[in-house]
Amino acid sequence: MSLSEIDILISEVGPRDGLQSIATVMPLEAKKAWISAEAASGVREIEVGSFVPARLLPQMADTAELVKFAKQLDGLTVAVLVPNARGAEAAITAGADKLTLPLSVSETHSLANLKKTHGQVLDEARLIKQMIVALPDGKRPHFEGSLSTAFGCTLEGPVPDAKVAHLAEALLDAGCDEVGLSDTSGYADPASVKRLIALVRSAVGDSAVTGIHLHNTRGLGLANALAALECGLTTLDSSLGGLGGCPFAPGASGNIVTEDLVFMLEAMGLRTGIDLEALISVRSILGEALPREEIYGFTAAAGLPLGFSRSTQEMERL
Amino acid sequence: MSLSEIDILISEVGPRDGLQSIATVMPLEAKKAWISAEAASGVREIEVGSFVPARLLPQMADTAELVKFAKQLDGLTVAVLVPNARGAEAAITAGADKLTLPLSVSETHSLANLKKTHGQVLDEARLIKQMIVALPDGKRPHFEGSLSTAFGCTLEGPVPDAKVAHLAEALLDAGCDEVGLSDTSGYADPASVKRLIALVRSAVGDSAVTGIHLHNTRGLGLANALAALECGLTTLDSSLGGLGGCPFAPGASGNIVTEDLVFMLEAMGLRTGIDLEALISVRSILGEALPREEIYGFTAAAGLPLGFSRSTQEMERL
Repeated sequence: MSLSEIDILISEVGPRDGLQSIATVMPLEAKKAWISAEAASGVREIEVGSFVPARLLPQMADTAELVKFAKQLDGLTVAVLVPNARGAEAAITAGADKLTLPLSVSETHSLANLKKTHGQVLDEARLIKQMIVALPDGKRPHFEGSLSTAFGCTLEGPVPDAKVAHLAEALLDAGCDEVGLSDTSGYADPASVKRLIALVRSAVGDSAVTGIHLHNTRGLGLANALAALECGLTTLDSSLGGLGGCPFAPGASGNIVTEDLVFMLEAMGLRTGIDLEALISVRSILGEALPREEIYGFTAAAGLPLGFSRSTQEMERL
Repeated sequence: MSLSEIDILISEVGPRDGLQSIATVMPLEAKKAWISAEAASGVREIEVGSFVPARLLPQMADTAELVKFAKQLDGLTVAVLVPNARGAEAAITAGADKLTLPLSVSETHSLANLKKTHGQVLDEARLIKQMIVALPDGKRPHFEGSLSTAFGCTLEGPVPDAKVAHLAEALLDAGCDEVGLSDTSGYADPASVKRLIALVRSAVGDSAVTGIHLHNTRGLGLANALAALECGLTTLDSSLGGLGGCPFAPGASGNIVTEDLVFMLEAMGLRTGIDLEALISVRSILGEALPREEIYGFTAAAGLPLGFSRSTQEMERL
């Protein structure tokens, strides 16, 4: 299935957001097996890692190798997170198709996470844009700014709506192709998802807001995803097995579970291009490589409904 | 908070649907502690049990005592499940405020579950209605018909939409005050929730369809609840700690988790009348009485967001 034949793009972020949140360092070969098996199941975009210093996040030390590996997989968009222009340079050198620069709406969180003020992150965005425009046409990666803590911050609590809109505009002005909302802390609810999407779209235009990054920290992940779908967003981040957990709350899961999200979308009649049974089977790679980590997800445990068609992945309409 | 001051009525079904699904028989005193603590947290409707023969479901043997106990709790609607007219007679004698008669859209499931055809269940509904109308005004319980397996059946697979609509009409004709859709098998998705609510409402009128019973078997419970809310339903069934599990799928949860549902609703600015912290503290009663059962729920594990107001239970809008 080509991108034009799917309705919703699932952007698998487990190899980045999942693995960076756990203490275990997954071996490179296991990461490659995971990424290639998920691509083979039909996943069309995978965030394979983050270009951060290995001394800060040893889990991400092999990101350049993973980008090169994943670039060989047919039809896969290879995404990476970059915290600054230096990371973007490494990502471009490795050949990444998509760069995501996080800008935390909570400046307290920005200082704690990236050691940068809003102004300093926006300076990095401008430097990254300069690098990108210097590349030949066809070699330029897609450049997304991600508004982390957009729905609230574990350090600051609620963040002002006006600040979210202002920073979305600032990211576009600095050269991002689009901006995404990120529920870093699992504070979003369906009403705030709809409110903020409408707000940011009114600030920067609908075409500059196509995706969202939601967590399942308080169990609302799929409800929030539904709210985003109803606003017309077409790219949803998720993580196989909900990998990642939540560093501040033992027992609380992190990202939306890719398998459950794909089940929801396909059951609704939306095409993801993903073979759900093949996707679920990829969980065994996680389980073997990370035996001490909790692997989340209800659909894998319950199995697919009787009559859930393998060909259309939709309940038959009688 | 009185019923007129809430937007969404949470109908706690754990003492019935949760406890009937697990092997352990919870002692009567623990059930009373659970029901009274949940009522004290602000829950306004609790399905306290089922009037089925004790040899079939020993977990429910004390339902009459529980009804009498719960009737003393101020402002609580005491609901029970009744499989037939004999059960309804016992429920009326005990003083229940609301009777729910399940009618499985899948006749295979109806025969397996109640040992009755559709026609036989509808006969029971007519007998129950006769009993109710013979009661003096003000003593008549609310009578709901619940369309179980409305979204599909583990035995039959998909069920025809037309059969759901037809049986909804038949239940109203037989004397039910309203009908509810029940996702017994966890097969629903947000699209099918919206489709079936619209279908049944067009068959029997909006005022005869106010509630829905959803499971979280495949993780879609809250997304499905959101879909139901968006259709204008105002009563949602759920179970504290998602108690009940799923007999056919170890590891798969059963009912929607009340705590997560209340968090979602209150975060959206909808009033449930429930004190979320008090509700979460009721989990300890379950944990102590049922040490071998899995207690689900993400909100309790993660805690409430920083800045989530205790007075309004809503994220502050800055």
